[in-house]
Amino acid sequence: MINQQKTVVTLGEVLMRLTTPGFARFIQAQQYDVNFGGAEANVAVSLRNFGIPAMHVTRLPDNDIGRSAILALRKHNVDTTHILSGEERMGLYFMENGSMQRASRIIYDRFNSAFANISKGDIDWQTVFANASWFHYTGITPAISQGAADVCLEAVQVARKMGVTISGDINYRRNLWQYGKSARDIMPELISLTDIVVAGITDMENCASVTGDTFEKACGQFKKKFPSVQKIATTVRDSISSSHNKISAVMWNGHTVLSSREYDLTNIVDRIGAGDAFMAGLIFGLLVKKDDQASLEFATAACAWKHGIEGDVNLATAAEIDDLVKGENVGKLLR
Amino acid sequence: MINQQKTVVTLGEVLMRLTTPGFARFIQAQQYDVNFGGAEANVAVSLRNFGIPAMHVTRLPDNDIGRSAILALRKHNVDTTHILSGEERMGLYFMENGSMQRASRIIYDRFNSAFANISKGDIDWQTVFANASWFHYTGITPAISQGAADVCLEAVQVARKMGVTISGDINYRRNLWQYGKSARDIMPELISLTDIVVAGITDMENCASVTGDTFEKACGQFKKKFPSVQKIATTVRDSISSSHNKISAVMWNGHTVLSSREYDLTNIVDRIGAGDAFMAGLIFGLLVKKDDQASLEFATAACAWKHGIEGDVNLATAAEIDDLVKGENVGKLLR
Amino acid sequence: MINQQKTVVTLGEVLMRLTTPGFARFIQAQQYDVNFGGAEANVAVSLRNFGIPAMHVTRLPDNDIGRSAILALRKHNVDTTHILSGEERMGLYFMENGSMQRASRIIYDRFNSAFANISKGDIDWQTVFANASWFHYTGITPAISQGAADVCLEAVQVARKMGVTISGDINYRRNLWQYGKSARDIMPELISLTDIVVAGITDMENCASVTGDTFEKACGQFKKKFPSVQKIATTVRDSISSSHNKISAVMWNGHTVLSSREYDLTNIVDRIGAGDAFMAGLIFGLLVKKDDQASLEFATAACAWKHGIEGDVNLATAAEIDDLVKGENVGKLLR
Amino acid sequence: MINQQKTVVTLGEVLMRLTTPGFARFIQAQQYDVNFGGAEANVAVSLRNFGIPAMHVTRLPDNDIGRSAILALRKHNVDTTHILSGEERMGLYFMENGSMQRASRIIYDRFNSAFANISKGDIDWQTVFANASWFHYTGITPAISQGAADVCLEAVQVARKMGVTISGDINYRRNLWQYGKSARDIMPELISLTDIVVAGITDMENCASVTGDTFEKACGQFKKKFPSVQKIATTVRDSISSSHNKISAVMWNGHTVLSSREYDLTNIVDRIGAGDAFMAGLIFGLLVKKDDQASLEFATAACAWKHGIEGDVNLATAAEIDDLVKGENVGKLLR
Amino acid sequence: MINQQKTVVTLGEVLMRLTTPGFARFIQAQQYDVNFGGAEANVAVSLRNFGIPAMHVTRLPDNDIGRSAILALRKHNVDTTHILSGEERMGLYFMENGSMQRASRIIYDRFNSAFANISKGDIDWQTVFANASWFHYTGITPAISQGAADVCLEAVQVARKMGVTISGDINYRRNLWQYGKSARDIMPELISLTDIVVAGITDMENCASVTGDTFEKACGQFKKKFPSVQKIATTVRDSISSSHNKISAVMWNGHTVLSSREYDLTNIVDRIGAGDAFMAGLIFGLLVKKDDQASLEFATAACAWKHGIEGDVNLATAAEIDDLVKGENVGKLLR
Amino acid sequence: MINQQKTVVTLGEVLMRLTTPGFARFIQAQQYDVNFGGAEANVAVSLRNFGIPAMHVTRLPDNDIGRSAILALRKHNVDTTHILSGEERMGLYFMENGSMQRASRIIYDRFNSAFANISKGDIDWQTVFANASWFHYTGITPAISQGAADVCLEAVQVARKMGVTISGDINYRRNLWQYGKSARDIMPELISLTDIVVAGITDMENCASVTGDTFEKACGQFKKKFPSVQKIATTVRDSISSSHNKISAVMWNGHTVLSSREYDLTNIVDRIGAGDAFMAGLIFGLLVKKDDQASLEFATAACAWKHGIEGDVNLATAAEIDDLVKGENVGKLLR
Repeated sequence: MINQQKTVVTLGEVLMRLTTPGFARFIQAQQYDVNFGGAEANVAVSLRNFGIPAMHVTRLPDNDIGRSAILALRKHNVDTTHILSGEERMGLYFMENGSMQRASRIIYDRFNSAFANISKGDIDWQTVFANASWFHYTGITPAISQGAADVCLEAVQVARKMGVTISGDINYRRNLWQYGKSARDIMPELISLTDIVVAGITDMENCASVTGDTFEKACGQFKKKFPSVQKIATTVRDSISSSHNKISAVMWNGHTVLSSREYDLTNIVDRIGAGDAFMAGLIFGLLVKKDDQASLEFATAACAWKHGIEGDVNLATAAEIDDLVKGENVGKLLR
Repeated sequence: MINQQKTVVTLGEVLMRLTTPGFARFIQAQQYDVNFGGAEANVAVSLRNFGIPAMHVTRLPDNDIGRSAILALRKHNVDTTHILSGEERMGLYFMENGSMQRASRIIYDRFNSAFANISKGDIDWQTVFANASWFHYTGITPAISQGAADVCLEAVQVARKMGVTISGDINYRRNLWQYGKSARDIMPELISLTDIVVAGITDMENCASVTGDTFEKACGQFKKKFPSVQKIATTVRDSISSSHNKISAVMWNGHTVLSSREYDLTNIVDRIGAGDAFMAGLIFGLLVKKDDQASLEFATAACAWKHGIEGDVNLATAAEIDDLVKGENVGKLLR
Repeated sequence: MINQQKTVVTLGEVLMRLTTPGFARFIQAQQYDVNFGGAEANVAVSLRNFGIPAMHVTRLPDNDIGRSAILALRKHNVDTTHILSGEERMGLYFMENGSMQRASRIIYDRFNSAFANISKGDIDWQTVFANASWFHYTGITPAISQGAADVCLEAVQVARKMGVTISGDINYRRNLWQYGKSARDIMPELISLTDIVVAGITDMENCASVTGDTFEKACGQFKKKFPSVQKIATTVRDSISSSHNKISAVMWNGHTVLSSREYDLTNIVDRIGAGDAFMAGLIFGLLVKKDDQASLEFATAACAWKHGIEGDVNLATAAEIDDLVKGENVGKLLR
Repeated sequence: MINQQKTVVTLGEVLMRLTTPGFARFIQAQQYDVNFGGAEANVAVSLRNFGIPAMHVTRLPDNDIGRSAILALRKHNVDTTHILSGEERMGLYFMENGSMQRASRIIYDRFNSAFANISKGDIDWQTVFANASWFHYTGITPAISQGAADVCLEAVQVARKMGVTISGDINYRRNLWQYGKSARDIMPELISLTDIVVAGITDMENCASVTGDTFEKACGQFKKKFPSVQKIATTVRDSISSSHNKISAVMWNGHTVLSSREYDLTNIVDRIGAGDAFMAGLIFGLLVKKDDQASLEFATAACAWKHGIEGDVNLATAAEIDDLVKGENVGKLLR
Repeated sequence: MINQQKTVVTLGEVLMRLTTPGFARFIQAQQYDVNFGGAEANVAVSLRNFGIPAMHVTRLPDNDIGRSAILALRKHNVDTTHILSGEERMGLYFMENGSMQRASRIIYDRFNSAFANISKGDIDWQTVFANASWFHYTGITPAISQGAADVCLEAVQVARKMGVTISGDINYRRNLWQYGKSARDIMPELISLTDIVVAGITDMENCASVTGDTFEKACGQFKKKFPSVQKIATTVRDSISSSHNKISAVMWNGHTVLSSREYDLTNIVDRIGAGDAFMAGLIFGLLVKKDDQASLEFATAACAWKHGIEGDVNLATAAEIDDLVKGENVGKLLR
Repeated sequence: MINQQKTVVTLGEVLMRLTTPGFARFIQAQQYDVNFGGAEANVAVSLRNFGIPAMHVTRLPDNDIGRSAILALRKHNVDTTHILSGEERMGLYFMENGSMQRASRIIYDRFNSAFANISKGDIDWQTVFANASWFHYTGITPAISQGAADVCLEAVQVARKMGVTISGDINYRRNLWQYGKSARDIMPELISLTDIVVAGITDMENCASVTGDTFEKACGQFKKKFPSVQKIATTVRDSISSSHNKISAVMWNGHTVLSSREYDLTNIVDRIGAGDAFMAGLIFGLLVKKDDQASLEFATAACAWKHGIEGDVNLATAAEIDDLVKGENVGKLLR
């Protein structure tokens, strides 16, 4: 049914990430490492590394900083044809890596970005989805600006009409949603057109006023409210320290809650984008493996793997993730 | 009359500068070198290195990026007591160093900064100038926002009343002035209260509609329009390439135009802040040397020296600049 | 006639370049900077930065080093669809930058590379040239192996038949040609199908046994021997030191020898790929400017500009090169 | 009683630390990372980051290396007004970071430093303590030279007279004490004027010939000998490897021994200055929290936190340490 | 009997290792860290650091890359007098460090190296062994080329005749052995002349068709087949992740299997060369300690220690390894 | 007569050089680049690179910093057998590179070094010179301490007796000579036993009270006072800026003053050790070329070449210097 020759389309802001080197705090930094990422673009890059055609749609400033972001995507063979140029600025964030008990910290500087100034009608979604099998968005996009919310809704509506599968990573962020609307104003309409949802209990509550004692019960309520939703997944993170986490995931598939194995991550390199790696793994699984448990295991292994990769995007092949699921080559020296 | 135990006060935005390493273009950068500077803060730091007490007044975001800027000033012993904190963002700019024929390029990202949101009344100028002998501003500040222009005017007015000498580096920037006022709306009132002006012919025309075939004639017209102005100086730069400039300066002192010697700068390290180094040198000269030609030579030597210093600020002692004026120790190995 | 919507196709080896940092000699190096380039691929990337569609054809090892080379091309939007994968190794070279009187040095390690093992028939040139207006090769490719020479000849023959303009940068390299054939065995047939040639007097002699006291006379002889050739150009380099060169160029256009202006390059950053930058500039000029002198000036300016860019490829826009030709913005600080 | 608007004064040598990058051994180092610290100056900087006014007193060479040390303190807003200049050299040490079982190693090169040449009477302690609430010294200072011991005693005596609380981190170092006196000759007089002591059983024995089977018994003996001492604290470190320690602390408060929670430090970044971070935390606790258990927990959390910070000084706010005590935000990603 | 004033001679290829910095994957690398090593040369360097005279014999290209390899050995005082020069290339390999579950990966590029082109008779083994007590080879050398296998056999035969003790680290590598011979064709003759063997069960099977359910049984069979063999040792590695291994070792001494203690390696820096560190430790132990259990413990501790050292070679003194065996100074800060 | 199979022996302190990266001033440095050098050791390394056996004699601290210095020499195949170990410290110096008009600056920290504590009788000069043809010292050594002066005199006396040629680079340094003796107390006796002297007019005056209007006249006077001296040479430096020098040299050969060609050094990388490079070139010339003018040209070219090399030592082969003398390969790209 789903054909992996077809493209997965993602929509969302690409941010410039400026990270202090090593474990330096902001006030110690003399250099910043630069890379480009975004919750949705990270999914596109990861899928492309898994062998799935992927296109990312966004709006970037018409200067060499914006162009650097495009180069970063294109390098990984993500289709950038439908990226728009604008007069405004690059959204960016500053990051310091935590170490042990000390948390990692992010200072966002993304207001009035080129993406925040995107408007309904800017993107020709019919053309974008011409060869698409899947559309992915996150709850970050509608939280940025009315225009971004409008464009996201447009995309979801067109995708729905064109029979494109839709996934949404709800990902509630309190500090966004500053343009006069709340998540509960905007998210329900989007979710009502979505097939695959990534959300935890608090996301469901914050975005859709759905509550439940357990993940399973909340999922049941969620399904009642949003009948189009087929599966709901979420990662389960145990943050022992910034250097040591345990990660697993669960997925409600309409019938039951499946659980993945848990990974012990004792020397974390970079956890940014781990959720996006999970999302890409889940899309890959559902597109290619067509088995819920296998998809969940693949997604969780992808999420675990990302913690060992520098930068926002999960640089892994599907074969590497398959090996991790099978427990092969773990921690070896491959010659 | 002027007492160098007293403080020189500067007002203006401090920007975070993100520079590509070496000669990398923006689209090649994997890291950015960070430092903090601003046309007026650079003057304060340079004066402090010359041994003059200096205070910088600005408004910075209340986060660790803003705090990093304060640390950078405090390290050089600039008084940061009157720096305000705000909710908004750090103004910043990206820079790539030119090489040979290729020009250096700057991409500004400074709109809606904490400083742009400063308002009349935020600063208690009476207290600020309590122990001050000199106040320095540039034409960048009133170009940023109405609030910044208001605060600059307030400062100039209070300084005037309290007998503080006032210098203004006119420094016309076409790309600023985007809040509805033009330089010609705002600058004349500021200049009319200023003692020492740094401006070239085009600055005088763009900011005060004063024209003149020669620098000397333009200065004569300027003085007529702004009787408070005592001296007008400007640097003269011959840009053979990004790596090779020649620099000299002229100063009209109410009577005649003095010329400095010219420096041949064949292997430029960093020209950002060279004008500010000139300004600091001029203030130091007028405060300490009390001789126009000596002041101009000191300022020009300071400007030349800055081209060999990494970062925005002129790290030089007064003794080092005096040596350069005298031609001593030039290019030597001092053990 | 020539339509710049069409693609320029280049064929040739992509090498991994391992450069000692700064001015370190090989025996001092603790790290090597890595980038990927090749005489022909550099032309493709430069043209893409000028806005011309470009495709590069090569054969790379089927490992992550080979993939890194593809990523480097794709980042700059060069079409990599027809790049082949092989079992063999990545050709590479080690480089130390000269300084002043000391020459730069290259140690090649390219034998038995994946590209050297390319064979006649591996590439479907009909498909490659389907939307092409121009094909570019250099004298390096046929010098590598019989297979590479065969593939180059195939390409030239198919291009000719399909009406694709053909350029060849003769570029004689004594140390190659180790598979049993000499340049004089192979090059004449290729040249006889070529429209635009880059070659100096010694190249013409070494590759085609054409001699002449002057460049003009040699060109006359060359044209007699190879009637298809329309234009012959070459750069003229005066190496005062590794840090200081003067560069200009000449072009024989069938009638006369045109000369470009000369650029004084006093602080060279990286001269590798300057000839390829010239070639890309020449192709761009002939495709777009359609004026011999303008094309030559554009090509020479591109060549000069490259000396200030880190890495093998000329990261410049056409507008930047046009500015240099016009003498605008040279050595300025563009805000 | 104790007023945190008042200044904490510290006395001691500031050393230049030259650390091999990463895990390089000394014989591998091509660069050294530089920072400046000292057991007492580290306390001052940490307190300043907690919001407490702090002044450091020392003697540094009158050259740019000495000035670099001053800049490092001033950056963190430590009052450097009473730092003296001398003709001699900067004390320094070389360090290689251990990894796993391999210990970290320090090579000191501090003899004949500017600080070792400080003399009785050099510091006007009356002025220094004019606005002080607390004076802190360590057992390193009197171990350096007779002059340093004299100055320390002077400070303690004046502080005592002026009602300034006195803390001493006994910190016995066998390799110092090379000027003809032993710890037992010098330390008792200093301790007899001290309120708050940081010392373990072996410190008490080596510096004051006080013995005891348990920390509690030793503290009892210590109090008998030094009635002025109010509290005795010490950290308890379990060094599983250079990368993995467990840290907790105990404090005898005149009545009983309080114990802190233990922190598991599995990925240590830099343990230098962890004892000084504890000391600063203890001073902060006793000044601000005024509760023994809360002070001990704050101090221990500060000590734990320092293991994740690059450099000698504990860059943490009081709020961050309070969070760690409460177990909030541990290992999270704070946006 | 064995006299440690005498030299240990090693034979084998020295490779240039190009490692991505930090945890970067190959496709992310902008720089590569360079060092030189080889299974046998690593043994020589480690022994030299233990105080044992050592000589390495190899063949390197006659260029500055080959010379860099010689410098790397000579720096550590390894005798390089008998290293030959050849026309061919430097063998090299690319490496990316694994992180957590992700394995480390090596891409070899060593075919047709100068060492692969070594031939029987190139080395005057009589002279080489004039002052030698020990000769060490590995199973890598005979796997490279017929010439290398011939030279290795020559060495073993001459060593045997001259009464030099011979050790062989069998180290079976599937991807080598591409010149037409298999390990089982070549290794038995070499082993039959060897005294001390490092081999696991699979090595014994792959190289000598010896099988056994347990290490002890396999050793018994091996001894029957190769009566000259006195001891067989091997490390036992438990790879929990790339960051966390447990390491121990066993040695069959003709009578029984001795076991070492196990080391928990929780934050691995670099595991390349850990087997060579074991080998060097074993040779040192057998030469100096002359006790089987002590030798095994020393070798295992050396192996553990190496995991914390950057680069291929075990930079440790014998005293440091002795301390680790005794559990002294583990994870301490040695001042 | 002179046989280049024989060893050149040098005596002198080896210092650790800590250089700020790029053009950073001391107060900006976060890292220091490290290398090891010394006026005499630099000569030994350079000669070794020219193919002449060389031995360096010094005294270094018995720690890993001292050992690092030995490794640096041994890497370049300098014989380190007679280097002594002492309890004291490593002499070191901090350096910031000048840029353009700004001078380079050195802060020495070398007092009480292991070398300064060398004593008469510590070195067995008879053994050292057993296979030597040449002994080289500089005026720095006797300026360090009485012990160093004594050992230098011993060396010169034994060398003289054993027929070893003696060269002395007079190199007067005002800031040394602090142990109670002046240059004029010590140098004459040393010079009176020396064959080849490098000295300028001021050196001759400061060390031997010899004056003269011109170099030629001063040399005449010098010869009268010191009949053993055969040749006197000195470099002539024109410091236009830190980035641009001109360098040439003169040599009085007992009859006349020979002049070398002048080199224009427009982009200086590192001038430290240029005088030592000249010295090594002169020794090489006199040993091998046996022609005064050829020796002088070789020495001057070596000196020029050094300005383009990072670090203290002149990494050049004799063939490279010969090429520079002939004007071959200057500023080329050698493949």
